Amino acid sequence: MAFAFELIKKDLRSQARLGKITTSHGPVNTPVFMPVGTQATVKAMTPEELKEIGAEIILSNTYHLYLRPGHELIKNIGGLHKFMHWDRPILTDSGGYQVFSHNELRKIKEEGVYFQSHLDGSKHFLSPEKTIEIQEALGADIVMCFDECTPYPATRDYTADSMERTHRWAKRCKEKFIHDSQFTAHSSLFGIVQGGMFQDLRKQSAEEITGIGFDGYAIGGLSVGEDKALMYEMTDAVIPYLPENKPRYLMGVGTPEDLVECVARGVDMFDCVMPTRNARNGTLFTKHGKLGIRGALFANDKKPVEDGCGCYTCKNYSRAYLRHLFAANEILAARLGTYHNLYYYINLMQDMRRAIEEDGFEEFRKEFYGMRGQESE
Amino acid sequence: MAFAFELIKKDLRSQARLGKITTSHGPVNTPVFMPVGTQATVKAMTPEELKEIGAEIILSNTYHLYLRPGHELIKNIGGLHKFMHWDRPILTDSGGYQVFSHNELRKIKEEGVYFQSHLDGSKHFLSPEKTIEIQEALGADIVMCFDECTPYPATRDYTADSMERTHRWAKRCKEKFIHDSQFTAHSSLFGIVQGGMFQDLRKQSAEEITGIGFDGYAIGGLSVGEDKALMYEMTDAVIPYLPENKPRYLMGVGTPEDLVECVARGVDMFDCVMPTRNARNGTLFTKHGKLGIRGALFANDKKPVEDGCGCYTCKNYSRAYLRHLFAANEILAARLGTYHNLYYYINLMQDMRRAIEEDGFEEFRKEFYGMRGQESE
Repeated sequence: MAFAFELIKKDLRSQARLGKITTSHGPVNTPVFMPVGTQATVKAMTPEELKEIGAEIILSNTYHLYLRPGHELIKNIGGLHKFMHWDRPILTDSGGYQVFSHNELRKIKEEGVYFQSHLDGSKHFLSPEKTIEIQEALGADIVMCFDECTPYPATRDYTADSMERTHRWAKRCKEKFIHDSQFTAHSSLFGIVQGGMFQDLRKQSAEEITGIGFDGYAIGGLSVGEDKALMYEMTDAVIPYLPENKPRYLMGVGTPEDLVECVARGVDMFDCVMPTRNARNGTLFTKHGKLGIRGALFANDKKPVEDGCGCYTCKNYSRAYLRHLFAANEILAARLGTYHNLYYYINLMQDMRRAIEEDGFEEFRKEFYGMRGQESE
Repeated sequence: MAFAFELIKKDLRSQARLGKITTSHGPVNTPVFMPVGTQATVKAMTPEELKEIGAEIILSNTYHLYLRPGHELIKNIGGLHKFMHWDRPILTDSGGYQVFSHNELRKIKEEGVYFQSHLDGSKHFLSPEKTIEIQEALGADIVMCFDECTPYPATRDYTADSMERTHRWAKRCKEKFIHDSQFTAHSSLFGIVQGGMFQDLRKQSAEEITGIGFDGYAIGGLSVGEDKALMYEMTDAVIPYLPENKPRYLMGVGTPEDLVECVARGVDMFDCVMPTRNARNGTLFTKHGKLGIRGALFANDKKPVEDGCGCYTCKNYSRAYLRHLFAANEILAARLGTYHNLYYYINLMQDMRRAIEEDGFEEFRKEFYGMRGQESE
């Protein structure tokens, strides 16, 4: 089945959108949050649990899988879906973000990026063509263009140069992608808008990237250290220049508040390590805010993490037990925490979709903020 | 429901026995292997998974739970079953083994043992009366007597002295246990035979412990460093002096071979960290022997860990994927490995029960050894 996006409806009083992506591995209802499965596993979870929670798509990292176990090995086993036993859609990033964030080990050239592995120091080269080749070997349903995630802060000159290179790379990605029609027939390619923290560059990047033409559009280079207001401002600067009939993906974002704010601005897709990483550190999300479950005040607490939560963790375990598991450094701590946090994130998206359907997004947003910090824990 | 043991049948050509234990938390078919849940969790597993695998009873450690989170806290939450969300039987050890194995931190007196916590160095005292009190607070279905697990090697004099103290402690445990009739009505107390590596002391201990009278009898002080032949010899020295109508529990044993050999000798119950601990290190059990899944030769191996195995891991994942998860140090590695190893152990016991039922234990034993090392991996 070919990739498609249907814009089902728009909220009456916000820019929030309800949509549906179709892929050869099934549908994705938007707005959607994509759990991160960096190394071909969403940390601590099985695919069955992700489905139980309601995850419709996951993100996996090209850089990590290219280095270990290697994309050719995964291709040989039957592709990433089969390798990791996940039969729903997978979006793979381009690897660019990781290559660029290991700053001291890389050299950027027009042809691509030379870098050393963070695992063993071995030398590698990643380019627009190469990342498409890797993502094709993995069998991604959504392939991302190779871009430079402009660092923050950056000068206007650096940002403009970097952005223009990202545009040239985007063209090369598309050329490489459409070349292999057998793969492209059941996959899709997303372009990435850059432009740092400059409104006019953001607009220019959106126009140039949409000019090339992709199956969907990502906003990259945000949530890199700037404050919230600036992040929302940059999102607002891009959205008007993205076509309505294509999905919009805000990369690497974010907190529950970020999701609500950016859905309100017209974003359809999100990914972030926050729910999974925080869970492993004992920080759990609830409608009342964050809960540091390691805290001594939970030692004798018979209540679930979140009253009324329908997740496996909350239905069966007390805060006291979770606190004990974290104190004892037990694997089950990471499991139960991750389960709850992903359930929270995915249900938050579901609640937002319902609100949009009923033209009640602004009421939802008010209620969302009203509940924060209400419970005295 | 009161504790009971029914000896269903004996194998025709070996001493293997088929039996059934009844507890207030359900039945346990013997011979049985008990997964170890040291800190109120069988490492990496949920209770639902343990049930799926077929676990009917687990063991938990009094020493660890006493120190963290504390037995009073667990009692306050509603007992260990509720605390850890496991509604099937639980056997708790007495804590003696852990107190004695942290050698440099303890002082043995007639009244009990003074020791320091391995967690924070705080000072504690454990006695026959205290361990019963703790196990009662936890709500164990099977309570173990406080004993000294005689170290190996030990002189005859030390062994005899230690054994006699264990006997005196056993009497005190029983007195304390029968005192609280509300608890004892739905629980049970097992005595422990010691006697080191001396046949006559083993016989003496078995006679004295059975003379006191318990709901079941454990053989302690084995699998402490002695060779297999000696372990089997000591087991053989004890079994004839244990009553037929009570369950027999060989503590802390062992390898798949140990289970087969000791079931053949008339043992009904086993516990060991081997399947769970080895799983976390990447050592997986199969009918053909052990598999070091981290090995490079599995990098491209599409086969499951064990061909024909019906477990979740083998039905859904390749050796290549498991090897990758272990190399990447992913939590799912521990989960999938533990699932498989416990499945292997629990199915091995099931196969033995079936063989006894059909009077075919010796054929089973031959087949078991015949399959070892057959597959060229």
